[in-house]
Amino acid sequence: MPGKNAFYAQSGGVTAVINASACGIIETARKNRNRIGKVFAGRNGIIGALQEDLIDTSKESKAAIHALVSTPSGAFGSCRHKLRSLEENRAEYERLIEVFKAHNIGYFFYNGGGDSADTCLKVSQLSHTLGFPLQAIHVPKTIDNDLPLTDNCPGFGSVAKYIAISTREAALDVASMCETSTKVFILEVMGRHAGWIAAAAGLAAEREGDAPHIILFPEIAFNREKFLARVKRCIKRHGFCVIVASEGTQYKDGTFLAESGLRDAFGHAQLGGLAPTLAQMIKSEHGYKYHWAVADYLQRSARHIASATDVEQAYAVGVAAVEFALQGKNAIMPIIVRGKGKRYRWSIGEAPLELAANQEKKMPRSFISRDGFGITDKAVAYLEPLIAGEAYPEYRKGLPRYTRLKNVAVPKKLKKFKV
Amino acid sequence: MPGKNAFYAQSGGVTAVINASACGIIETARKNRNRIGKVFAGRNGIIGALQEDLIDTSKESKAAIHALVSTPSGAFGSCRHKLRSLEENRAEYERLIEVFKAHNIGYFFYNGGGDSADTCLKVSQLSHTLGFPLQAIHVPKTIDNDLPLTDNCPGFGSVAKYIAISTREAALDVASMCETSTKVFILEVMGRHAGWIAAAAGLAAEREGDAPHIILFPEIAFNREKFLARVKRCIKRHGFCVIVASEGTQYKDGTFLAESGLRDAFGHAQLGGLAPTLAQMIKSEHGYKYHWAVADYLQRSARHIASATDVEQAYAVGVAAVEFALQGKNAIMPIIVRGKGKRYRWSIGEAPLELAANQEKKMPRSFISRDGFGITDKAVAYLEPLIAGEAYPEYRKGLPRYTRLKNVAVPKKLKKFKV
Repeated sequence: MPGKNAFYAQSGGVTAVINASACGIIETARKNRNRIGKVFAGRNGIIGALQEDLIDTSKESKAAIHALVSTPSGAFGSCRHKLRSLEENRAEYERLIEVFKAHNIGYFFYNGGGDSADTCLKVSQLSHTLGFPLQAIHVPKTIDNDLPLTDNCPGFGSVAKYIAISTREAALDVASMCETSTKVFILEVMGRHAGWIAAAAGLAAEREGDAPHIILFPEIAFNREKFLARVKRCIKRHGFCVIVASEGTQYKDGTFLAESGLRDAFGHAQLGGLAPTLAQMIKSEHGYKYHWAVADYLQRSARHIASATDVEQAYAVGVAAVEFALQGKNAIMPIIVRGKGKRYRWSIGEAPLELAANQEKKMPRSFISRDGFGITDKAVAYLEPLIAGEAYPEYRKGLPRYTRLKNVAVPKKLKKFKV
Repeated sequence: MPGKNAFYAQSGGVTAVINASACGIIETARKNRNRIGKVFAGRNGIIGALQEDLIDTSKESKAAIHALVSTPSGAFGSCRHKLRSLEENRAEYERLIEVFKAHNIGYFFYNGGGDSADTCLKVSQLSHTLGFPLQAIHVPKTIDNDLPLTDNCPGFGSVAKYIAISTREAALDVASMCETSTKVFILEVMGRHAGWIAAAAGLAAEREGDAPHIILFPEIAFNREKFLARVKRCIKRHGFCVIVASEGTQYKDGTFLAESGLRDAFGHAQLGGLAPTLAQMIKSEHGYKYHWAVADYLQRSARHIASATDVEQAYAVGVAAVEFALQGKNAIMPIIVRGKGKRYRWSIGEAPLELAANQEKKMPRSFISRDGFGITDKAVAYLEPLIAGEAYPEYRKGLPRYTRLKNVAVPKKLKKFKV
């Protein structure tokens, strides 16, 4: 008799390698058919579980599942639905247990960031109370790299690599044109609360004076005068200035720069325009010609230049999640543990979900240079191994071949539930 | 006795492969040392010639020159300085001849777009009048793909590949999140007068209904109502809508959308914000959650994912330029000629500069779908071969190794000249 089925869902913003974790989970479960039945995935994340909209991954070929390793974004769909606290919304938690019961699900693999770690923990606790024990394992994922306990988060290494490469490339462009054209280039990157992604741009510099010349972190209060003076000095010294700015760059009082000032013809405040805001600020003060780019989704879906280290780690946390479950573990999260010594080594460890949930790991101050505009050698030593290696996807007709699953629905057994 | 020296300059916006053309020229000249002396490059383009600021490329190692094949942007610097007409500015043309005379330069290789083809032609004509004959060969380069006579332009294939890949990747991201989050994604791409780059995004679609769902071309007058209706229909049908917009998208009267409306806190018009303008328009009308990206310099410097076909062609036009010069040709441009038949083949041909200068090749109407929002099979057949193949650079510590030349100056012999 096969074991209980497993449920897997992708949660929150997707990454270039979250499907590699899905692949690790499904492939490892398939290798243990005597103990784990089928892997059912939630269509559009936890919403799929609430609505009993489950995808039967056993309908997918071995090749299709394996191709997930090199396919970005969420192959089963993800969502931004956050389960509220147990007190506020017990009905949703009870519904989850009801669905899991109906489909003989004994393993709950939840692939997400800090919020989902919390959900995962609560689901595990409640299932016991309701007499339907589940093993709940959280599989870490976030481009923001802000989960505690783990040395780094799967998903981050690839966006870090993309941003470092893009910064190096765009800087060469500006450098070659600055004599008669653009002098300031601003790249806006993700990172609302933590500056890890912007920090990765610092890897683009090989020598003193190389771009990026200014990095803006959410962790460092933005000072207009200091910033403008720095831009000017940089252009005097190098002829051009490359700025990489976290979208969460904010003033001392917590106001995001992106919210500060731009309005459309109807007077509506325009959000999300940090790069143009900075560009306008520099233009008004110094008059320099500028260009700006906003990488947005391009950065977190850029599987074409994913970090091989990141892909391996994302796959490994998926494998470990199933292995931990088979060892009877519960309410934990596989983490990446950095080995000691100069040469980078990593292994998979585990951490209890109580300690992981709802925590945010910001950039340590020691990773940011004293003036607040760059990264330190310590940050370089931390970041560099995470972008190592290229894991190119296959190409067809000049474009990456990304897999598309059939995503066949599991027949429903329960009444509808309104999310 | 070695032959006359050659002058080479990069002009206008740089590309991911313009240095591959430089490499083709320098390597071919080095193979013909008995007939061509040294290759002197203009520092920052034609400005370097005017200011007698020449770079002695013979000081660079064979390896450094070869590494130009995989280094984006302009290794010698480029500029936006356009020489005015002979009548308006004879002094600058005469200065060029003076500098070329002083440095025994008999070959003029100018690597740029339509404007520089014109300059190249005038320099060649004037040199004869002034009794210092030069062989002037224009080496085509532009990401805009808008030069006449040549089937395509070196530099375009790589930006086309980057945009097609980025569109496919970002679309997977939106598709996996659209149930509860972002429904509209807008990618703003380069192309002020011609929509070739935006058109390339159309290659991302494999099946009916795939992203991009809407492409905006400068060639098609923007119609607000039609556009908004299309966005709505697309979201009803597919759950999300991916839009790729040329920066030059304009109303029927020629007003750029990017210039229409956004103002900062001081009331200054904000330019270059096409993507946020479209996003705001959709938000006001339909209320959908949106994200937008502006690729800007990232797209034209993305050597990490250059088209192998583009790299080969860029190198080949450089080689051909020198070979044409050695055959005694003058005032011509090597062009890319597409072979007949289903399988893509190309060879190098030549075109007289008289016909190439100051012409702009827009997208043929037959390449744009009837509704104006997509590309036709004819466009796909044209575009697809241009993005074929990956020409990955070498990596070190997770980042591409791009070469940096020493760029040693040739000793000056003349008085200063004010540009």
